[in-house]
Amino acid sequence: MSESASQRLAFVQNHLQMAACAAEEPKKKSPVESMTEEREKATFDVREMTYFLDGGEKNTKIREKFMMELERDPTFRMYDMYDVTKDEIRVRTMEKFRTIVHYVSAEPVPIFTMRMQTISLIDPGFWTRFGVHYGLFFGALRGSATSSQFSHWVSKGALALNGMVGCFAMTELGHGSNVAGLETTATFDEASDQFIIHTPSVTATKWWIGGAAHTATHCVCFAQLIVRGKRYGTKSFVVQLRDTHTYTLMPGVNIGDIGKKMGRDGIDNGWIQFTNVRIPRTNMLMKHTKVSRAGEVKEPPMAQLTYGALIQGRVAMVVDSGNIAKKAVTIAGRYAAVRRQFSSSPHDVQETKLIDYAIHQYRLMPLLAMAYAFHFTGVETQKLYDHLMDKLESTQPNDASMQEVLDTLKETHATSAGLKAFCTWSTLNAIEACRQTLGGHGYSAYTGLATTYNDFAVHCTWEGDNTILTLQSGRYLVSCYREALAGKTQPEGVSYLNNLASLLNLGCAVKSNEDILSFDIIQEAWNVVTANVVKKAGDDFENSIKQGLSPEAAYEECSQARLAAAKIHSFGYIFRRFAQAVKSAPEGLRPILTKVCFLYGLYSIEQNSGFFLQYRYFTPSQMDFVRAQVNVFCREVRQEYIPLIDAFNYTDYMINSPLGVYDGNVYEKYFEQVKRQNPVGGEHPYLPLIQSLLRRNIEDDEPLEDDEEDEE
Amino acid sequence: MSESASQRLAFVQNHLQMAACAAEEPKKKSPVESMTEEREKATFDVREMTYFLDGGEKNTKIREKFMMELERDPTFRMYDMYDVTKDEIRVRTMEKFRTIVHYVSAEPVPIFTMRMQTISLIDPGFWTRFGVHYGLFFGALRGSATSSQFSHWVSKGALALNGMVGCFAMTELGHGSNVAGLETTATFDEASDQFIIHTPSVTATKWWIGGAAHTATHCVCFAQLIVRGKRYGTKSFVVQLRDTHTYTLMPGVNIGDIGKKMGRDGIDNGWIQFTNVRIPRTNMLMKHTKVSRAGEVKEPPMAQLTYGALIQGRVAMVVDSGNIAKKAVTIAGRYAAVRRQFSSSPHDVQETKLIDYAIHQYRLMPLLAMAYAFHFTGVETQKLYDHLMDKLESTQPNDASMQEVLDTLKETHATSAGLKAFCTWSTLNAIEACRQTLGGHGYSAYTGLATTYNDFAVHCTWEGDNTILTLQSGRYLVSCYREALAGKTQPEGVSYLNNLASLLNLGCAVKSNEDILSFDIIQEAWNVVTANVVKKAGDDFENSIKQGLSPEAAYEECSQARLAAAKIHSFGYIFRRFAQAVKSAPEGLRPILTKVCFLYGLYSIEQNSGFFLQYRYFTPSQMDFVRAQVNVFCREVRQEYIPLIDAFNYTDYMINSPLGVYDGNVYEKYFEQVKRQNPVGGEHPYLPLIQSLLRRNIEDDEPLEDDEEDEE
Repeated sequence: MSESASQRLAFVQNHLQMAACAAEEPKKKSPVESMTEEREKATFDVREMTYFLDGGEKNTKIREKFMMELERDPTFRMYDMYDVTKDEIRVRTMEKFRTIVHYVSAEPVPIFTMRMQTISLIDPGFWTRFGVHYGLFFGALRGSATSSQFSHWVSKGALALNGMVGCFAMTELGHGSNVAGLETTATFDEASDQFIIHTPSVTATKWWIGGAAHTATHCVCFAQLIVRGKRYGTKSFVVQLRDTHTYTLMPGVNIGDIGKKMGRDGIDNGWIQFTNVRIPRTNMLMKHTKVSRAGEVKEPPMAQLTYGALIQGRVAMVVDSGNIAKKAVTIAGRYAAVRRQFSSSPHDVQETKLIDYAIHQYRLMPLLAMAYAFHFTGVETQKLYDHLMDKLESTQPNDASMQEVLDTLKETHATSAGLKAFCTWSTLNAIEACRQTLGGHGYSAYTGLATTYNDFAVHCTWEGDNTILTLQSGRYLVSCYREALAGKTQPEGVSYLNNLASLLNLGCAVKSNEDILSFDIIQEAWNVVTANVVKKAGDDFENSIKQGLSPEAAYEECSQARLAAAKIHSFGYIFRRFAQAVKSAPEGLRPILTKVCFLYGLYSIEQNSGFFLQYRYFTPSQMDFVRAQVNVFCREVRQEYIPLIDAFNYTDYMINSPLGVYDGNVYEKYFEQVKRQNPVGGEHPYLPLIQSLLRRNIEDDEPLEDDEEDEE
Repeated sequence: MSESASQRLAFVQNHLQMAACAAEEPKKKSPVESMTEEREKATFDVREMTYFLDGGEKNTKIREKFMMELERDPTFRMYDMYDVTKDEIRVRTMEKFRTIVHYVSAEPVPIFTMRMQTISLIDPGFWTRFGVHYGLFFGALRGSATSSQFSHWVSKGALALNGMVGCFAMTELGHGSNVAGLETTATFDEASDQFIIHTPSVTATKWWIGGAAHTATHCVCFAQLIVRGKRYGTKSFVVQLRDTHTYTLMPGVNIGDIGKKMGRDGIDNGWIQFTNVRIPRTNMLMKHTKVSRAGEVKEPPMAQLTYGALIQGRVAMVVDSGNIAKKAVTIAGRYAAVRRQFSSSPHDVQETKLIDYAIHQYRLMPLLAMAYAFHFTGVETQKLYDHLMDKLESTQPNDASMQEVLDTLKETHATSAGLKAFCTWSTLNAIEACRQTLGGHGYSAYTGLATTYNDFAVHCTWEGDNTILTLQSGRYLVSCYREALAGKTQPEGVSYLNNLASLLNLGCAVKSNEDILSFDIIQEAWNVVTANVVKKAGDDFENSIKQGLSPEAAYEECSQARLAAAKIHSFGYIFRRFAQAVKSAPEGLRPILTKVCFLYGLYSIEQNSGFFLQYRYFTPSQMDFVRAQVNVFCREVRQEYIPLIDAFNYTDYMINSPLGVYDGNVYEKYFEQVKRQNPVGGEHPYLPLIQSLLRRNIEDDEPLEDDEEDEE
């Protein structure tokens, strides 16, 4: 036998031995099989849960119709979105406008809102870009234009997006949160009956203006109204930016691109400088403040009525938080059902699913519970807002019920501010936590959560910086607390302040640890602790007042306590929303939802254990029980967590992550995705560079030898 | 007077009125003036602090030399880094190799390490890319090759990066953390005296391999050693991937690009599949396990000695955490000194600096304290590691002192694992928190922290997933606890376990609240609480054992308790490191460092108040005092926080954020940066698209009218 033949034989024998070993091993479950077995564990009807979450079968059907339409629309293709450049994504965003604009006029508002919610999950950059015109620009017209002004701009094409497209020029380089401090001026020139819009300094440059860089023909510009040398504060003006045919800039308008951002690059954010730009007087939006031909300024009786528009954006972000949290949990949850790593016993051939590790359950199950909690909170907050808007539209300033409407407005304003901050912060953290549960694969762009994080992060700072909103919410709580002390009954959201005296002295009423596991006790625990934390902020405030500080300075002094109060209040508020939803759920869903709700409540208590011990609602040993129960409920919810995720009813197209696919075939789909986006072969991107490095003459690095011998 | 002249006159009058108003206003401080006044508050010598942080004036001078060299090197230009594409950044990364390779052989290791630390701050992608060859590939040769094998690969150019460049092919698509579970096989073919390297499945595809996509000619491949049908576990083999001249792939090697990532796109991560690739037997790295010509396998006596290499990477990440935290705090801190928003009193003309708000101090000052704490922890951890390596090199397996060395190895391994996880998690959160303090501007790519976040995030999952490392650290603590109970004295890092009995029953010894403000009490508080939390994990473990569980299952049962133990242990450990550094500081620096250290300790206690109340070290009223003192120290540290930041001594070039510039001229530099990267004018990116949208025939959207009349 030749050497080569004998080599071949030995090799074949080796391989036969290996094959024999393999044959003895029990069959391992494939990723798809690993996923399938999870679905068999459901004790509830997944479809029924979807209907319940969507608010009825009809809504589910509508959402499914949207998902199909989007998935088949070539301009909404998503598989290559993680690789497109900023310039490409902006072009693609523009392409999508044509499709979606069609539906603005063709669909009733609630249906179109559902369409946009679906889009926000798939393509948040486009959602925002579209919202810049309709939510911000058109919303500003609706909220601040007189009816004849409104008709004028609609006739120019503001609704149909035909002939003009708008943007919202509020923030400046030097001012974001403090709108009253904006520097841009709108000076009334009586002689010409015009306003002169002007940017007096670098910091007055309009900044972050979505759609300004390349798209908008008009803007609603916020500027200091100056009439006859007197300042009247910030008002809004329609200013044309570009010729609507040629797209050349109007005289005195200078616009540039803000450039690369953390995410949402589909939006062409820009900066704008105005240099003595003249606009007709009637371009000032005069629903509230009016300036007459003669230069008389009439200010509105109720400035707070303009808050409505702010609330809308915040409510949308609460809803978006729930939706995005569901998406993140879907990806992380499905991967954890099929990914196997290590085995619990050295003799096991099949490795253990990530989700079967206690610590992985502890990482993921509370986030799943949070996603459910935020979902129901979003639904309720939307209702609260719709209810408020109905009231606002049906009530006239002189109606007897106006005070009640203003109270509701105040409550909704504070609630939406606090929830926007709380939900967007929590969701951002949840996205990152989910990303990390993917291990190394979470760092790939194609697995989706890196981009989700970068897109979502902006929610924490725009339309009201989260810290400032939280402080506002805390300020509202302090004022409610003071009113409650003075005997005024407080609205539902802060109703725990109505029986303050008894609540503050309430220890935990439970006889045995098991009693803790009830909606009432968990809710009471939150009420007692929230009341105490709010009281702390209120007392800090009162002490500062007693020491002679102004109310503003006193609020500043208690800002950390306000922040804590608002945060704790939000936990309790969201638990109540969740508990109410569970009670209203169909009977077949209630057992599993109760577990998920308890997990949310107990985990939140554990995370804030300091307050519960501080105010002695729970004893240390009860707190140990709570901690142990968190693990118990993690294990319980884990049993049906894939059905709970399936109930969110997001298609693979919407999830857009190979690790979150429905069938569990994660590795093949991930590999396919990577290869499709990075085909093998092709030209080497830097061959000459690497060749010259590896073939360089390293003697070049060495010094000339000291020629000592010559000197001799 | 003509109408136009009268218009002009009215306008001029208006402007004069405005100018008069402006003249009456007191002068406002510019950003630069706002920054300058902060520097005047220093009570310590900033330069002395820099020397202290750097470990002496000499080191500071070396670092400054590096910074200047890098800043002037055109291949290291950074101003446009936020806009370069993945392909461009990879080319640029390659260009940098030539410069840096030169220093590998020209500089002593400690100096070169300092150079690389500087680079890691400026360009983390390049740092990692360089580390792939020298840290991972070359490190694997050094750690696992016999001395003759090592010489062979050095002679081939592995050290000089001349003739070859390597990568580290360990992780696979299906296995990351569980290295023992890797699927790639290395089957010994006795006849040919070769190993056959093979990828048996999709999940066995080597994945995430840095440098593989386009650069590496060789890899160290981890594969299951199979000799005569028997498996010996995962060993490492040098496998050639490409022709070192033409860069064509070797037969049987298939390589692709992993593509877009969350960050660090300068690294060309790739995937590799081997299809029966033959390598000489001597390409197996045989320092530990050996396979002879006859197919005899000799396994090493002490497998744990191979841990050393793992520790090095973790220590580097602890050091990097401190450095990046300092960078993030520099940007957020400097911006907060010049950004003004709202005014505390309605009559103030000058708005208030962000940093003068209590809540902003509360957001930033603890992060500044953390950056100092991590800095000193990094220095100490590096020393611990160097000390260990010295010992390992000077001790032979049969030496009497070997057991002591192994104990130190075990301790350093566990400590570095826990610290890597704790410091990278905390720093990632700190980057995001700092980014959010920039308000909307934090979302711009040019302000730097978005990219910093994306680059840094990978630290939490690579070279040991943080959760798994934390559990390992917790496991070590449980085993130390059990040893301590059995009477064995524990090493310095866990020395609190040595007087366990007295510690567990120790309540807070302080008479008055003010006594809390001492290094000893804060340290004792941490010791008591850590001991209790470790005890909880240990007791959970023991209970499971008593119930008949295997040790592995018992560890699994107590995993949440282990996680908590490791986290709390890290807080106390880092506080001790910081306190020790303060005590060793020059006298002039001690007062301010004491404040910073107290802030770190008290803030950490507040954040974990549940444990301190649970184990009754502090009473609720003492905890209120701690909370109040956090605010007091925030205010105190705020007084000198800009000098404290200046002491980090990072140049504007290194910071690479217009909001973090030394002189405070943030707005102009930010605007300049945006304009330089996005010049005004130029071609419109999608003019035809927007024109066709705005000029579309909207009648197309309307249906054909029902032609009823024709039917008549």
